[in-house]
Amino acid sequence: MEQAFVNWLRQQTRTHPQLRLGLGDDAALLAVTPGRELVVTSDLLTDEVDFVLEKVAPQRVGRKALAVNLSDLAAMAAEPLAAIVSVALPESRAERLAHGIYEGIFDLADEFQIPVAGGDTNTWPGKLVISVTALGQTTRKGSLRRSGARPGDLVLATGQFGGSILGHHFDFTPRVHEALLLHRQYDLHAGIDVSDGLSLDLSRLAHESGCGAALQLDEIPVSDAARQLASADTSATAIDRALGDGEDFELLLAVPPDSAEQILRDQPLDVPICCIGQFVQQHGLWTIEPDGTHRPLAVQGWLH
Amino acid sequence: MEQAFVNWLRQQTRTHPQLRLGLGDDAALLAVTPGRELVVTSDLLTDEVDFVLEKVAPQRVGRKALAVNLSDLAAMAAEPLAAIVSVALPESRAERLAHGIYEGIFDLADEFQIPVAGGDTNTWPGKLVISVTALGQTTRKGSLRRSGARPGDLVLATGQFGGSILGHHFDFTPRVHEALLLHRQYDLHAGIDVSDGLSLDLSRLAHESGCGAALQLDEIPVSDAARQLASADTSATAIDRALGDGEDFELLLAVPPDSAEQILRDQPLDVPICCIGQFVQQHGLWTIEPDGTHRPLAVQGWLH
Repeated sequence: MEQAFVNWLRQQTRTHPQLRLGLGDDAALLAVTPGRELVVTSDLLTDEVDFVLEKVAPQRVGRKALAVNLSDLAAMAAEPLAAIVSVALPESRAERLAHGIYEGIFDLADEFQIPVAGGDTNTWPGKLVISVTALGQTTRKGSLRRSGARPGDLVLATGQFGGSILGHHFDFTPRVHEALLLHRQYDLHAGIDVSDGLSLDLSRLAHESGCGAALQLDEIPVSDAARQLASADTSATAIDRALGDGEDFELLLAVPPDSAEQILRDQPLDVPICCIGQFVQQHGLWTIEPDGTHRPLAVQGWLH
Repeated sequence: MEQAFVNWLRQQTRTHPQLRLGLGDDAALLAVTPGRELVVTSDLLTDEVDFVLEKVAPQRVGRKALAVNLSDLAAMAAEPLAAIVSVALPESRAERLAHGIYEGIFDLADEFQIPVAGGDTNTWPGKLVISVTALGQTTRKGSLRRSGARPGDLVLATGQFGGSILGHHFDFTPRVHEALLLHRQYDLHAGIDVSDGLSLDLSRLAHESGCGAALQLDEIPVSDAARQLASADTSATAIDRALGDGEDFELLLAVPPDSAEQILRDQPLDVPICCIGQFVQQHGLWTIEPDGTHRPLAVQGWLH
């Protein structure tokens, strides 16, 4: 199906001022704005692990495959430029599936005004696999990395956490615009997006920065979905779910106190942003107890 | 296995002057040389279609997954910059397999002095899938595209064709250095690498250029492997195999006559380069008969 499908894709995909050559040659050509760095991230999603194709529309699967990558660009405060999409389609229903998947991808790509600039469409005897590589570029302020947090910085978080399995893990909005706005208007030291769990990803950010982080548990915004799951299954509390469920695709940011106070006062985003803790010198993850002391917090999350 | 494996990968992977941030953050950062364009290509390989994992060492599979992408960069006459590698590993033997695959990838990446800058390592209940995205940049002379051939240009080809299934499809050398040297020293109009078959890929190049191509069949360099297969199985002749087998990963170039004559005289590559035909005004693929007339040639090749 490759040639007919490539023809269909070529008709569907949008242009972009920096895309110099899209689908149809051996490779795509992109112009990166002079003085900016190219930002590249890639995620591969498989049936039965990241989604269950029997239970979900292919549009939502395609959307998710792009969205998780845009979330990684957001974590670096990068402007999205293009997506490269490769799929291994089960041969029994390849064409119908492909159209659904790409519809979901194109809807989100249009929202963020990026083209699908390349990829590889395959059929095979196995189940569905989607691999997306997202390309972006840094802004004039440079990139936001995991390694810039300093003890004393506050931990700011967008949105709510936990229970994404009830639907949010498909329908979340990657925080691209939020990250770009915050990075442009405020002083940020480091950032990460929460894919594997708030506590696990926060511990990664702290580790890369050579420090620790202490969380004010009662300040963590717990989603309704997390509460709903906790009341149906008492093996995990709502806060445990907020700390460990993953696929929230919210931003965790390390922000110096002055800048953090300004952000919290301004609330400049369409989504709430709040302070859930502070980076500390002592490595590891901690809770801030009512008396101000720190206690070790077990890292929860989704280790692939 | 993701974290332990990422740690191993971080130790293995090489540096590159243009790689500003590699594995370990949400995305990689690369500096594209000012004035150059980014070149991006992606290929996804699956078990039982592109290789049979039961019958081949994972090192060769990994090598091939990178090599097919470098061949695409060569077709654009681009300098390789980095590779992004994502895998879906069968969970029963994920770790052993992953090490073998990445060994093959690193060996070839070292040969072309590029780092593995990112990717995604997954396990799942299915069979092996490898998705590689290769990043490169154009040279000072710009890119070589499929669309630049003009009637009168000669069709030059590197190497030999046919029978790659006997081993060449794993062990070929992507013609990166060859493409860069030719593009730098001579006037080239268009290029493509032969992945799906000489006649199919040549017809694509001609189609994108809005012209046709006529082949001098007795000038096509037929590989020993093609002859070997043809003598064992008489359903296809050696020349049919050279025209249709695919996965030769040689270059087909559209070169104006003066420049072509110079290349043929100089033979500036480690591999032979020869003239196998000419681009013509009349669309489609043709043979050049002994009396100089053109006859239609059926396009053979591997349509996925």
